[in-house]
Amino acid sequence: MVRERLKLQTTPLDEARHIFFEALDQAGFFAVREEEIATRESLGRVTSRAVFAQRSVPHFRAAAMDGIAVRSVSTREASPSSPKRLKKDRDFSWVDTGDPIAEEFDAVIMIEQVCALDEETVEIQTPTAAGKHIRAIGEDFARGESVLSASSKIGSEAICALLSTGNLRVWVKKRLRCVFLPTGSELVAPENVLKSGELPETNSILFENYVSQWGGSAHIHAIVQDKSTELRAAFSRALDEFDLVCMGSGTSKGRDDRTASLVREFGNVLIHGIAYHPGHPVLLGVARNKPVIGIPGYPVAAWVCLMQIVKPLLRRYEGLHREIPRIVQGVLAEELRSIKGFREFVRVRLDSTAQETRVYPLPGGASRTSSIARADGWLEVPEEVDIIHAGESVSVNLIC
Amino acid sequence: MVRERLKLQTTPLDEARHIFFEALDQAGFFAVREEEIATRESLGRVTSRAVFAQRSVPHFRAAAMDGIAVRSVSTREASPSSPKRLKKDRDFSWVDTGDPIAEEFDAVIMIEQVCALDEETVEIQTPTAAGKHIRAIGEDFARGESVLSASSKIGSEAICALLSTGNLRVWVKKRLRCVFLPTGSELVAPENVLKSGELPETNSILFENYVSQWGGSAHIHAIVQDKSTELRAAFSRALDEFDLVCMGSGTSKGRDDRTASLVREFGNVLIHGIAYHPGHPVLLGVARNKPVIGIPGYPVAAWVCLMQIVKPLLRRYEGLHREIPRIVQGVLAEELRSIKGFREFVRVRLDSTAQETRVYPLPGGASRTSSIARADGWLEVPEEVDIIHAGESVSVNLIC
Repeated sequence: MVRERLKLQTTPLDEARHIFFEALDQAGFFAVREEEIATRESLGRVTSRAVFAQRSVPHFRAAAMDGIAVRSVSTREASPSSPKRLKKDRDFSWVDTGDPIAEEFDAVIMIEQVCALDEETVEIQTPTAAGKHIRAIGEDFARGESVLSASSKIGSEAICALLSTGNLRVWVKKRLRCVFLPTGSELVAPENVLKSGELPETNSILFENYVSQWGGSAHIHAIVQDKSTELRAAFSRALDEFDLVCMGSGTSKGRDDRTASLVREFGNVLIHGIAYHPGHPVLLGVARNKPVIGIPGYPVAAWVCLMQIVKPLLRRYEGLHREIPRIVQGVLAEELRSIKGFREFVRVRLDSTAQETRVYPLPGGASRTSSIARADGWLEVPEEVDIIHAGESVSVNLIC
Repeated sequence: MVRERLKLQTTPLDEARHIFFEALDQAGFFAVREEEIATRESLGRVTSRAVFAQRSVPHFRAAAMDGIAVRSVSTREASPSSPKRLKKDRDFSWVDTGDPIAEEFDAVIMIEQVCALDEETVEIQTPTAAGKHIRAIGEDFARGESVLSASSKIGSEAICALLSTGNLRVWVKKRLRCVFLPTGSELVAPENVLKSGELPETNSILFENYVSQWGGSAHIHAIVQDKSTELRAAFSRALDEFDLVCMGSGTSKGRDDRTASLVREFGNVLIHGIAYHPGHPVLLGVARNKPVIGIPGYPVAAWVCLMQIVKPLLRRYEGLHREIPRIVQGVLAEELRSIKGFREFVRVRLDSTAQETRVYPLPGGASRTSSIARADGWLEVPEEVDIIHAGESVSVNLIC
């Protein structure tokens, strides 16, 4: 078999993402597809429409403190030297926090400021103002008011707000159905006793965890052998059944690389090789109007591809207004060298004291699962930088 | 009914936590209880023992690049002016990344540096060194090496590392079984049409979400009416069946406050009232050697109690070596006033630009679900501070 001198592209990461996302945008991939679901099942989903309060919260005038409900006018002359006596039912009623306030009363006096003389009589020493310690109707949410805007991520707090305002169902963006096809005759389940040359297939575990966390629904295909008919059939089925098809391994230019030719058969390869380390042999394509990502096989390479390609794609589909970056500032503990022209993702471990956070780079290379298993986050070394000195301040992206 | 002038404690938060945790420590609550589970089911769990590699990764000498495996000695004289020809099988064999290296070879030359002349012959222009582009046995994990230390949180990356090293099962700390008992005759399921005086019970939603997220198993009891026999029976059963009992509402000193007397019946009230806002009427106790937390009923009060009491308790039980704080630095957009002597938890919304993160305080008060539904995080205003000016730099705790 004759080998050619083959070379992958070195497209800058930002450009690669831009080309990929533009093509997907034109294919209509980012259009909102929505469904209505039970609010109690909506944790982590993203609203597809603004949601408005169906009822006010609170829906009645309520005591904001434990104490007595009174007419403020009847307390006007109370003072420490001349306390005012109030009669139960006629002048006041006992209320606990949350109790409805009878129509004739307009203020609540805290129990701490009430002196009970007998079962029917209390004494107060200070006047109170109308409205004091009363929650007005709609203080939290007025009926018709916006509860959540469209494209909001639904947390448990938002579920409380939705249910309180009578929104028992909510319109959300459909989850992207994402499939991972591990390919390679050398791959076996990690539960197996491994023969020489066999590799435990664990990238599907990263895929399943992160895709779910980022709002997609993750499906794992059985390991596909390197026979092109089997692979071709699985790929074609995946394009029919899922929104995003990720091919594991087979993305370098070696013997078993069938992803690129497969994608070309069903669509277009847009990018094959991105200027970053580790894991540059990424493939990005569109087939039958669906995104196809060739995820390199090494664990760290797969991990970087998930963080740098799959996550932004899922986030863009969700269309969140804004995301709060999970970034920690720290001091680099050891000198770091990087290759110019490539962006480098360096896994790091943090050691935080009250004074500072020290940032320790973990061993490099695409193949070390240990470097991601022990990492708290990663540093991004830009293309034009080839050294960061110990003691320099750096921004660490936390893993999440 | 005669009312007394009642007053809750104002124990500083740090002191309250200290007293509570010390008492629990003495009751043996933080002792490790462990169980062995399938590694694939261990996401988010915490190791109770150190884990060691049962096999090396890789477990064979493997090609780190696509190319040819060679004897380095046979490449010694190669140069651009006098390329070295190598014969297949005798001098080299084709290898792909991950392939095992035959015993007679000791280096791999990348395919990009190989010129194939015909099916049997290649030419190279530079020498290579022994070991080059070969992954040594155990490069990632050597057999017997530590994979995870005890008290490590297991992420998906760690699951990959555990399975790759042949650890199909793992010893983890048992989850704390935590129960939430919503109490109060005014509480109803939020799915109901609400009558005057009825409140939708939503704190259980926060409890379930956060306790699960923090490593506990969350159980929600049906709403318990304010009849002391029913409440007493439910509380006693909860103490038998769970590790942590949280009573919702009923913690202020009002009419329906039965939590304190109930706890006294079965054990001790340690703290009743913490010097923070919102939500100071927290109750901390120990009954039958188990922690009991009286969580105040207002949604924001319950939320602060979860973050400030329940989370640290679960974290302490997990005994994680270290936790990376999720903190963002920002600039306060509006002046903020706070009561001296109380720590204040102010919910905030963030607006991040490339230049800075602006921090907007949300409406205060314990009753506004809107303030937590719209929050990105919270500011902690210390006890001794009563004002923070607009433009000051502040640390925001992200919700997670």
